Amino acid sequence: MEPFANLTIPQKEALLKSLREEFDRVCGKNLKLNMARGKPGKEQLDLVSDILTVLTDPADCVCDGIDVRNYGNLSGLPAAKRLFAEILGCKPEQCFIGGSASLQLMYDLIAKAWTHGLRHSERPWSREKCVKWLCPAPGYDRHFGICAHFGMELISIPMTAEGPDMDRVEELVMDPQVKGIWCVPKYSNPQGIVYSRKTVERLAALKPAAPDFALMWDNAYCVHEVFGEFLPFPDILQLCAEAGNADMVYEFASTSKITFPGAGISVMAASEDNQAYLQSLLKFQVISYDKVNQLRHVRFLQNKAHTVELMAKHAEVLRPKFACVLDTLAREIGPLELASWENPTGGYFVSVNTRPGLASRTLELCAKAGVTMTAAGATYPYGKDPADSNIRIAPSYPDLEELTQAMEIFCLCLKLAALEQAG
Amino acid sequence: MEPFANLTIPQKEALLKSLREEFDRVCGKNLKLNMARGKPGKEQLDLVSDILTVLTDPADCVCDGIDVRNYGNLSGLPAAKRLFAEILGCKPEQCFIGGSASLQLMYDLIAKAWTHGLRHSERPWSREKCVKWLCPAPGYDRHFGICAHFGMELISIPMTAEGPDMDRVEELVMDPQVKGIWCVPKYSNPQGIVYSRKTVERLAALKPAAPDFALMWDNAYCVHEVFGEFLPFPDILQLCAEAGNADMVYEFASTSKITFPGAGISVMAASEDNQAYLQSLLKFQVISYDKVNQLRHVRFLQNKAHTVELMAKHAEVLRPKFACVLDTLAREIGPLELASWENPTGGYFVSVNTRPGLASRTLELCAKAGVTMTAAGATYPYGKDPADSNIRIAPSYPDLEELTQAMEIFCLCLKLAALEQAG
Repeated sequence: MEPFANLTIPQKEALLKSLREEFDRVCGKNLKLNMARGKPGKEQLDLVSDILTVLTDPADCVCDGIDVRNYGNLSGLPAAKRLFAEILGCKPEQCFIGGSASLQLMYDLIAKAWTHGLRHSERPWSREKCVKWLCPAPGYDRHFGICAHFGMELISIPMTAEGPDMDRVEELVMDPQVKGIWCVPKYSNPQGIVYSRKTVERLAALKPAAPDFALMWDNAYCVHEVFGEFLPFPDILQLCAEAGNADMVYEFASTSKITFPGAGISVMAASEDNQAYLQSLLKFQVISYDKVNQLRHVRFLQNKAHTVELMAKHAEVLRPKFACVLDTLAREIGPLELASWENPTGGYFVSVNTRPGLASRTLELCAKAGVTMTAAGATYPYGKDPADSNIRIAPSYPDLEELTQAMEIFCLCLKLAALEQAG
Repeated sequence: MEPFANLTIPQKEALLKSLREEFDRVCGKNLKLNMARGKPGKEQLDLVSDILTVLTDPADCVCDGIDVRNYGNLSGLPAAKRLFAEILGCKPEQCFIGGSASLQLMYDLIAKAWTHGLRHSERPWSREKCVKWLCPAPGYDRHFGICAHFGMELISIPMTAEGPDMDRVEELVMDPQVKGIWCVPKYSNPQGIVYSRKTVERLAALKPAAPDFALMWDNAYCVHEVFGEFLPFPDILQLCAEAGNADMVYEFASTSKITFPGAGISVMAASEDNQAYLQSLLKFQVISYDKVNQLRHVRFLQNKAHTVELMAKHAEVLRPKFACVLDTLAREIGPLELASWENPTGGYFVSVNTRPGLASRTLELCAKAGVTMTAAGATYPYGKDPADSNIRIAPSYPDLEELTQAMEIFCLCLKLAALEQAG
């Protein structure tokens, strides 16, 4: 196989014809394959289903002197705070325990900024003329979605191999209308980039013009290694405090990809002053999130070491799937020079950058052939990828056989799109 | 015993002295008794703890073809919708299933009105000059709290034996700034009043000037009989639709006092058009609430008939507690003509109206004697009871012995407050 650019016109035409025939054969199979979302597969769910039986009778339901079956304890079960604090490296008093999705805690923080303002806000953000937000891209569509939903102006920040382009970030936070930034510091979504220590320190030491600038630290993949040993990470709350920015950061994590995605627990870690402020608002909204489920997680996960052991079992399931994606790309696409990609060592995605202008056509062809993937552009603010290039592959949900098939179809569609473009 | 009004001054003085001595004795006991919140007691929690084991292995976790352990199904598990629809008398498609608290769904609806507006809003409520809200009082402090938190102007509506004073409601909704009303139609909090059919029909047929007026129908006690058989109630969604107000009503309920208060499931029922609109906003906030817990509830509660049977077992636990409160009041306070109260047949509270000016002093004395109760005024907007008269008694949490003691102390404190006032 040779780079398409080296082919003669007749060679291209012949190849296009044969790929089209193959594509028609695949379409005829009426497949339904899904690589759209970072959903754990059934094998992973089964791996953790003993969590269903860690609490079986009333005597199991008392922890820290609290009967978790009843009302109370707005900020969550102390034992759940201790568990997350150990994992994140922060203090239990800095943790607020939420329901089954950290997304809800992130949304809620921004909604509260909108209706009431954050601790250092001069006014609710709904009364600001304009709220701007920094979006390292490619990034997580649901992050960008929240901001767009509130009518903010989203500003793309290029991603580098060390994290967001910090020169650009440091320059932009001098605008007082810039109120925050999304960060996925470990195994970023979708690229799987781990922010360098230098990048993390520069983020912690930002000097934003807005007094209520929010460093949204979505540590979604904090213990989510796929290849290799557990990779330690710094406590962003401590780093921010040392830089005089104790109230600037809000860290999020959840058990969504540790236990059950639909039925886990989540955490928002923030300074004690931020917790006091936010809980004075949260008390109007909730009496407490589900403490029975919090206790289930405490009993099942036990502590950081035991959680990391469990994640190694998830990694055993995920590793062949990631290998399948990376191997297929290397074999089918590599020699053709149609795309480049990261080789992530953790997280839930493989991020592919096609030659400009190929992403949406590739995914259109995939859809016709029965392979559902995250929409083209989804990884960029407003769902618009300026180069029409980035494609997020989520290998976790299909079984290995389906994934192999889906990846072959994906590569076929990418080749077809490239040949169509060339012709 | 005679009404205090009939006593001579020396008789009053002698009584005050002996009551003060009794009060000092009680204070010396350092009691800690709590009649503050509508929390089920341990016996009730134990009664439903088999819900912990209805799902024990992966095969149990599939329902309606959905593996409840994974992401997806924003509006909830179809089986959970069917369960709530049967209980409320509405359609499954009208149900959105939430997390462990209906409070969160109510807060969220108003927050969304604030940031984005409801389906028929001309603008987000944050951009209205003034938002007014009707508060039948005495009522539920957390309802009033949400509205005050958003800076609304709260308007008290007197409660009658049939529900809110409808003449007043019909008059006030002609003001376009009046955007909604709180209703607890069955066993109202705190009085335990069941709205009459006529009141419910007048509420459903309101013609508010605001196009986005919200009838907030908190059916918190829809199956919560204490004395007597299950009392049927009309489907408010249907009544509103028949009156041309399909999109005016939002009905809420939860299993908080059916299974575990800290770990149940909740529902918001609304027209299908409202659901479509609200879910188009909710999708930015949540992927789905905890479907594992939804399925636990479906398996445990099964259907309306089985739920009503379970509620009869709760009633067996609650009945002696309510009887203790009512009997103690009748014996200790009745002859003295210091207060009047409702005799509720369901719900979670007994509402006492003292002679004007006695409530806060009574509760201050109770606190000194170690009996915690809902703060005086809490049942009125802004926490201010204009007559300083209403006291909410929550008999469910203490065991019968503690409750007996607490009620005797309460009556002692009320008598003391009355004698102090008279002197």
